[in-house]
Amino acid sequence: MELAGARSGRRSGPSATRAAVLSAAQRQFAELGYDRTTMRSIAAEAGVDQKLVGYFFSSKQALFVAATKLPFDAGKAIPHVLGGDARQRGWRLAQLVLEMLENPETGPRLVGLVRAAASEPEAARMARDLFAGEIWAPAAEALPVTDPALAVSQIATQILGLVMSRYIIRTEPLASLQAEAVVDLMAPVLQRLLGGKQGDER
Amino acid sequence: MELAGARSGRRSGPSATRAAVLSAAQRQFAELGYDRTTMRSIAAEAGVDQKLVGYFFSSKQALFVAATKLPFDAGKAIPHVLGGDARQRGWRLAQLVLEMLENPETGPRLVGLVRAAASEPEAARMARDLFAGEIWAPAAEALPVTDPALAVSQIATQILGLVMSRYIIRTEPLASLQAEAVVDLMAPVLQRLLGGKQGDER
Repeated sequence: MELAGARSGRRSGPSATRAAVLSAAQRQFAELGYDRTTMRSIAAEAGVDQKLVGYFFSSKQALFVAATKLPFDAGKAIPHVLGGDARQRGWRLAQLVLEMLENPETGPRLVGLVRAAASEPEAARMARDLFAGEIWAPAAEALPVTDPALAVSQIATQILGLVMSRYIIRTEPLASLQAEAVVDLMAPVLQRLLGGKQGDER
Repeated sequence: MELAGARSGRRSGPSATRAAVLSAAQRQFAELGYDRTTMRSIAAEAGVDQKLVGYFFSSKQALFVAATKLPFDAGKAIPHVLGGDARQRGWRLAQLVLEMLENPETGPRLVGLVRAAASEPEAARMARDLFAGEIWAPAAEALPVTDPALAVSQIATQILGLVMSRYIIRTEPLASLQAEAVVDLMAPVLQRLLGGKQGDER
């Protein structure tokens, strides 16, 4: 990939450089994992001086968090899942999760986030803060169940388990199933956690 | 930890050295993760020459697999879970999983295995082979459901999700729950996968 760095002139400018660094960081964190991605390797791929990476992002951790902006808008996803037919909540969430994980652009970023969180306690803390602020808190507010925070923890468990088993460890036959089949497997468990069946609707 | 290496004399001998290397490797893989554990750091902790580590284990991957022998006997665990009251299968499996994960000796080894598998594709492949040979194949043979291989994949998903959310990312409130409460949360999902409810018993 040939990306114009700040050195190649005014036109590309700081925001283009920052974007090139972020893009290289996203790709490398997803593919190499947190530990093996370095400020240097990111600078090299972005075609910029390593010092410039340090100028935009004080540390690898900071760059990691910046690079792993969630590839969806929780403010839209939550009403989409919880609105409409209450019996289809689990199915809509499973559908949304699979769409993001199977998408060639967003999938590797999400899998990379899980990889990074697994390999490094600092990254795990940041992933937790990222999820908690952007998804868990708003989701827990919206969930029509008696213990929404616990339900959100359990939903996270289902999604993290899927990422590990289908996309990272690749257990068969789950890894080779069509996405639609995986949606059908996940939907009933998610439906219960989303208040669809347990009789504890608010 | 002061462990007698081969250099300290005949008495400790090769098997004691090998055991010291394995013990250091188990601790380091669990605590540092796969990437940051090195043959050198293992040799240092075991108090042996690095060449001796290479003599016993040809590569870090080989040492990883040797160090992560599963801390339970699937030959006993499977009949324990599937035998007895069929309505309690999910509860017995959840109980067994939590006992191993909460145990201060076996827990970090299992969590370390998941960490390592997440951070390195080669380790993921080895973890898959290890699980497949020692647990999944015998479990799939014994499971009284219509698609046992898929059920085993889904059980793996549940356990991997729990390890990620409670022990690695530590999502709350799941991370702070008493083990018994986690058993109660997991049991119904596992029960369905173990053929306890879906009406597809053999």
